[in-house]
Amino acid sequence: MHLVAIGGSDAGISAALRARELDPGVEVSVVVADRYPNYSICGIPYYFSGDVAPWQSLAHRTAADLEATGRNLRLDTLATSIDVDRRRLQVRTPEGRTDQIAYDELVVGTGALPAYAGITGLDRLGPEDGVHVLHSMGDTFALDRHLDERDPRTAIIIGAGYVGLEMAEGLTGRGLQVTQLQRGPEVLSTLDPELAAPIRAELVEHGVTIHTRTTVQAVTRTDHGLEVVGHRDGEPFTQTTDLVLAVVGVRPNTELLQAAGATLGAGGAVVVDDTMRTGLPHVYAAGDGVVTHHRLLGVTYLPLGTTAHKQGRVAGENATGGSARFAGSVGTQVVKVFDLVAARTGLREHEARAAGWAPVSSTGVADDHKRYYPGAQPITIRITGDERDGRLLGAQLVGRLGTETAKRVDTYATALFAGLTVEQVSELDLSYTPPLGSPWDAVQIATQHWSRQATHVPA
Amino acid sequence: MHLVAIGGSDAGISAALRARELDPGVEVSVVVADRYPNYSICGIPYYFSGDVAPWQSLAHRTAADLEATGRNLRLDTLATSIDVDRRRLQVRTPEGRTDQIAYDELVVGTGALPAYAGITGLDRLGPEDGVHVLHSMGDTFALDRHLDERDPRTAIIIGAGYVGLEMAEGLTGRGLQVTQLQRGPEVLSTLDPELAAPIRAELVEHGVTIHTRTTVQAVTRTDHGLEVVGHRDGEPFTQTTDLVLAVVGVRPNTELLQAAGATLGAGGAVVVDDTMRTGLPHVYAAGDGVVTHHRLLGVTYLPLGTTAHKQGRVAGENATGGSARFAGSVGTQVVKVFDLVAARTGLREHEARAAGWAPVSSTGVADDHKRYYPGAQPITIRITGDERDGRLLGAQLVGRLGTETAKRVDTYATALFAGLTVEQVSELDLSYTPPLGSPWDAVQIATQHWSRQATHVPA
Repeated sequence: MHLVAIGGSDAGISAALRARELDPGVEVSVVVADRYPNYSICGIPYYFSGDVAPWQSLAHRTAADLEATGRNLRLDTLATSIDVDRRRLQVRTPEGRTDQIAYDELVVGTGALPAYAGITGLDRLGPEDGVHVLHSMGDTFALDRHLDERDPRTAIIIGAGYVGLEMAEGLTGRGLQVTQLQRGPEVLSTLDPELAAPIRAELVEHGVTIHTRTTVQAVTRTDHGLEVVGHRDGEPFTQTTDLVLAVVGVRPNTELLQAAGATLGAGGAVVVDDTMRTGLPHVYAAGDGVVTHHRLLGVTYLPLGTTAHKQGRVAGENATGGSARFAGSVGTQVVKVFDLVAARTGLREHEARAAGWAPVSSTGVADDHKRYYPGAQPITIRITGDERDGRLLGAQLVGRLGTETAKRVDTYATALFAGLTVEQVSELDLSYTPPLGSPWDAVQIATQHWSRQATHVPA
Repeated sequence: MHLVAIGGSDAGISAALRARELDPGVEVSVVVADRYPNYSICGIPYYFSGDVAPWQSLAHRTAADLEATGRNLRLDTLATSIDVDRRRLQVRTPEGRTDQIAYDELVVGTGALPAYAGITGLDRLGPEDGVHVLHSMGDTFALDRHLDERDPRTAIIIGAGYVGLEMAEGLTGRGLQVTQLQRGPEVLSTLDPELAAPIRAELVEHGVTIHTRTTVQAVTRTDHGLEVVGHRDGEPFTQTTDLVLAVVGVRPNTELLQAAGATLGAGGAVVVDDTMRTGLPHVYAAGDGVVTHHRLLGVTYLPLGTTAHKQGRVAGENATGGSARFAGSVGTQVVKVFDLVAARTGLREHEARAAGWAPVSSTGVADDHKRYYPGAQPITIRITGDERDGRLLGAQLVGRLGTETAKRVDTYATALFAGLTVEQVSELDLSYTPPLGSPWDAVQIATQHWSRQATHVPA
């Protein structure tokens, strides 16, 4: 039995690990487009901030580690087509030759590609022009070389999502004057603006210039540097800079599977069921290239590393004869921006309403621990619940580093997974000691606040 | 409608608050035995460590705050008997007179009293002898006076539970040479010894002398100080010290309700149902004096501040015509000892077995966040699950301060509340960013470890 996994990131490697864990006799090959298997893409911003060095430490496992556990790694090898009927994968070898790899089961984890959001120039300009994306170790080296060799003074980051914010911190730490452009009314559009506003303040306090309601139309190379042109609040906007980093989202990398006959669904991603089957015989897929089963939304597209790991694990288990099912995402996310932590899980009000729920939200503020003990800090928590049956639908949290905000969101994530009501969160038996909590935890002060505000009928 | 609550701590005050929240028209009186209503007893050790000052800041709410929201406080007033038929509470006033308070509904939250564990002398000796307990603000002042006025150099703490460990830290911080005596094989007997061992090491590293397997028989006053006599590892043990602090547990304070005809149950505590009714008409009870409904154990006795708050809230709601039910404890507890945090929720193996489960446990170690990001620290996590159906039964965690261990236990607590399996915890969609977690959170690395170790039949 030969399992072939395509992709050296979360989904492909997780599938390979799980297969070998369940059946040490299975032969596993991993086809990796570059020479950097199992690198933590989420860690790249911390390489630029200087928190992580050398870059090699970003590897979850080294290639040697992976090989030692019996995986055959084919690095610098691009999967070019799948012959589903004959169960053969065509690849381009590092030497540029075409090769065929026979498989019994195939797991495709080709991930996503940077999106350009219709911005003219992003498709044509590249690192040598000073225009960067950040999605691979190759992108990382290119940006690093730019910083080292050309000593840019200013940078424009297009986009203020997770990577954009982390890179604003990273490039500021490298001494650049960073301007961040965001299309919407506030940074971090995955949160409600009132929750994201403190993140913007934190960035500004650390010297980042933020322009919201700013749409970029084009990036062009001029004699004076890179010119970023667009509109801000409806007025024309132009700014010249030494470096442009475009982090405006991703699009699923589906070419390989699409050509093989797979179906595309939500977000243009490859349709899979909760066993990670594509519908093509013996072909599984997982990660940022496939649709996401969401416990509150049904099928959607929400590419996240945590989900890719879980989906990959399911694919690896099923490809070796198992019967695992992906239990579904609830959309839990967290980001650190300088000394603030912002997290969310579940749905925001407009998302819940669009999905047919009857959402009501309330925002409360509670200390991370008893105020009499030194260092207490407020956490702002916005709860969304269904006004009809009181079911918890989502939570958003913002607090300072050290307030355990990142793991407090997990209590809500667990409650969402289990389908608890907002009232039941108030009833949870959570931990308390004065230096680290309150008799009613901040998590519950927020749900009690919701219960007082919302005119819901208790379950 | 006149609601009378007896007790100025968590249960009584929570009942009073909830009643007024639901029905601002209800008249609420709170009968408090001392003059310190709504003080955080859990915070007292941090007053001695110097983290909290002045002592007044230990009040959750001031007496003035409480009165401002319409509660009538009767301080320094001891409830002496309940006339259930005539709905009258007899009290001793601050002036020593007997008075009667008519009530419509009564909530009794008389809490617990320090236990003496059969140690001769503890009943006779008091603060003036240098022998202390720590259960009220009065006890706090007495110990504080001792430290200020008599400048003791050495202290023996009998007991190494939560308060004992926190006070070992507190008195060490005050410059005393602390010896801590513990009956069992390891400190913090609420955890498995392998989890508690790092706590002992932390105490020793900070200069505390620990004697385990040490049973104290007697404390006597001599010309040279206080003599503590007992056995250590079966051999006679004697040590002389300037100060003794006995923190060997609590016993429910049931005298008032017992005399009124209430039934005693688990742990000698007053029997209540999950609506907090005692069975005596119009008499509710909550807090450390009553039995605890536990979601995994049924009815037990597990006095905790968090539970007292919840039970008090239920009592207050029902006393004003509501129909709330206490959802039940899962035994979640956490303690900070110097720079370590130890937490547990649910059952340990022997507890689970005694309750009819088929527990299997495994201990894993996982970093609090990605190792490549600075400051990663291991968290040791012991998972107990049922080998028959895979249900999660309990979790114990030990990690350093800053590892979000206190809020990681809450994920397990929420899973226990919802009745999830160990496998389902591995499936949870938990938050991840490299500075604060891992794609599989430490919580899940531990449950995956359990799944590999335990020979259970998946659900």
